[in-house]
Amino acid sequence: MEARLSDLVVRRASMVFGYDQPGPLAVVIRGGLVERVVPDLGPEGASFGEAPELDAAGRAVVPGFVDAHTHLVFAGDRGDEFAARLAGRRYEAGGIMRTVGTTRSASSAALLRSLAERAAACLAGGTTTVEVKSGYGLDTATELRLLEVVASANADPSVAVELVPTFLGAHLDAGPGYIDRVIDEMLPAVAQAGLATCCDAFCDPGALTLDQSRRVLSAAQRYGMAIRIHAEELAHTGAARLAAELGCLSADHLVHATPEDAQALAGAGVVAVLLPATSFSLRSAYAPARMLLDAGVTLALASDCNPGTSYTSSMPFVIALACSAYGVTVAQAVRAATEGGARALGRHDIGHLRPGARGDLVVLRGSDWVDLAYRPGMPAVDSVVKDGRVVYRVGPPGQKPGSLQSVDE
Amino acid sequence: MEARLSDLVVRRASMVFGYDQPGPLAVVIRGGLVERVVPDLGPEGASFGEAPELDAAGRAVVPGFVDAHTHLVFAGDRGDEFAARLAGRRYEAGGIMRTVGTTRSASSAALLRSLAERAAACLAGGTTTVEVKSGYGLDTATELRLLEVVASANADPSVAVELVPTFLGAHLDAGPGYIDRVIDEMLPAVAQAGLATCCDAFCDPGALTLDQSRRVLSAAQRYGMAIRIHAEELAHTGAARLAAELGCLSADHLVHATPEDAQALAGAGVVAVLLPATSFSLRSAYAPARMLLDAGVTLALASDCNPGTSYTSSMPFVIALACSAYGVTVAQAVRAATEGGARALGRHDIGHLRPGARGDLVVLRGSDWVDLAYRPGMPAVDSVVKDGRVVYRVGPPGQKPGSLQSVDE
Repeated sequence: MEARLSDLVVRRASMVFGYDQPGPLAVVIRGGLVERVVPDLGPEGASFGEAPELDAAGRAVVPGFVDAHTHLVFAGDRGDEFAARLAGRRYEAGGIMRTVGTTRSASSAALLRSLAERAAACLAGGTTTVEVKSGYGLDTATELRLLEVVASANADPSVAVELVPTFLGAHLDAGPGYIDRVIDEMLPAVAQAGLATCCDAFCDPGALTLDQSRRVLSAAQRYGMAIRIHAEELAHTGAARLAAELGCLSADHLVHATPEDAQALAGAGVVAVLLPATSFSLRSAYAPARMLLDAGVTLALASDCNPGTSYTSSMPFVIALACSAYGVTVAQAVRAATEGGARALGRHDIGHLRPGARGDLVVLRGSDWVDLAYRPGMPAVDSVVKDGRVVYRVGPPGQKPGSLQSVDE
Repeated sequence: MEARLSDLVVRRASMVFGYDQPGPLAVVIRGGLVERVVPDLGPEGASFGEAPELDAAGRAVVPGFVDAHTHLVFAGDRGDEFAARLAGRRYEAGGIMRTVGTTRSASSAALLRSLAERAAACLAGGTTTVEVKSGYGLDTATELRLLEVVASANADPSVAVELVPTFLGAHLDAGPGYIDRVIDEMLPAVAQAGLATCCDAFCDPGALTLDQSRRVLSAAQRYGMAIRIHAEELAHTGAARLAAELGCLSADHLVHATPEDAQALAGAGVVAVLLPATSFSLRSAYAPARMLLDAGVTLALASDCNPGTSYTSSMPFVIALACSAYGVTVAQAVRAATEGGARALGRHDIGHLRPGARGDLVVLRGSDWVDLAYRPGMPAVDSVVKDGRVVYRVGPPGQKPGSLQSVDE
């Protein structure tokens, strides 16, 4: 995504997330940034100048979703493994290494093409910023190649969503000497080439030990990288406490987090990135979201999009699921899917629509953002604006024409 | 929906649900009915005559979904009640009677308009037949008016989905003498006008007693109507056993069904209509689907679309949720959402693609129908065919053009 900064006025929103005023409201974007959100007095009272307009036509507006945890760059899928798991059969060929195999043998052009397609699907679901982890290379050359593919997609003007790369060479312990190579070869190469400013580690039984995670993340910090960690997903390992100790931006999954973990995360300002779609797909336990909230932890919601355990990038689905499975309110879920995600990425310019924020927003289909959870599974997104440009709009559907007015971009 | 029976050949399907042959396959529809499903040998080997063609382009084909339990004709929504429930607040004004109030005061034209919009949303989710219950009238005039609105929608050629009306005057006990009026006034009027051939009763604490349900359903049988029952949703009442005793087409909800209930249903051939989206929205228990399956009960999956407890009509969402929450396989879920739904309506001409069936089918987005559950929340439907006509097709999306070839309808 190459920023093209535009002026735009989004007219006649029924409500704008983060603002209490009753609608209709207008969101005024200048030079790609939110200038102000004001009552929309209609044509006679309007004084928005010559900026292009998007008519929200009584629909609700929320910030663009910030999906802060995905594994979006890979080749192949594992639908057969998913089906076998549901049918109660063991699936011998399954697991991350299967995707590593297909990914290593895919060309960069093919990886770029599939990443761009997945990014377009993110956008159609209202996501304007999506984090993308490497981690299906597990050798120096392929890990670097995956991050280069993310950089290429980001530079492609047809990819409208912003991709935020994260280095996850530490996705698992891929054999003797592997963690040393992550630290001694991959990290310096990634840092030097500027391919990622953040490093993640998967600390869980079957992946990295707590000690290996500490080594990788501490090394990343020496290279000036921000750090994050997959924590307490399959078992309680102490990774959440490590996140607090090292000052991670986020601890992710947290299915097995304890109240003591929550206190540590809250005290250290570590964001809890919760991934309910993974529990949904694995038919496993859901993270203790309300306990974390009650402890004062900042929540983020993300899709975890990956071919093994959560092959969805739909943030409206994730929001609905968080309300049902976690029992958080719709406002808490929307905040976690926007500003919470931004915080997990160390970002303050996205995830909200206060003056000065990037002009990234979603015009929903409904007049109230409660529909994101009240109407689960229903199409939720009408239009998506990135940096003040309309980058996605539901076309005239096959069956019924939409009522959104066209605008010139 | 007015049947317009057409010829169509759906070409190059990767798989067709119910058929074991490897793709590519062609579904040949003549005069609106499935004639055969055969290997698609490509242009050189094709001998499909002059019929219009739809290129499935390597996507999977399933029968059109049969959503056998909805309350789709109503006015107003109750998103505020949904949000309040999530926030842990009591909502005094809630409940069915609130929708009864808004529905009674809505004009028939307004009810028809909103029903047609909801029917279009069903179609976009791959549903080609949807049952619609009355029950937000609760007086003779309004109950009849609601069924007339369903009949009007069915006669409207722009409504492509088939609507199957069910009389649910017995939605609750609306005061002294009400059940008598259902039996003595409404049932004969509905039967005489031919507005519904099936009668339902809501047997649960707060709605009808077992005895009231028995009276209503027995009376309906005397008018020659088929019968169904809302059973064991909020508590165990004996309604499932009543369904078996009276010979209901289906018993619906069954959250609290016991193994003895399952045996009775299986023995009497009563279909179990399960409504997981209701449990999802209410954050309540899920029905014991595997226990019912293991007892030999035929399962149907339906949306229960209504503004109070399940405001979704997305059958792909319902299928994904059934796999996650019930632990049924994707094949079991798809069968329940198609042929199971048809059986709950007493229909044999829909819900499958065997020769002689109606030419109602969905071309999915993915090459495998496992994606319905493997990719939850992602857009699932590419095209919908009803009686051999292409009635819905994803247009060129805002972001990326689809690869489906156009056909003349």
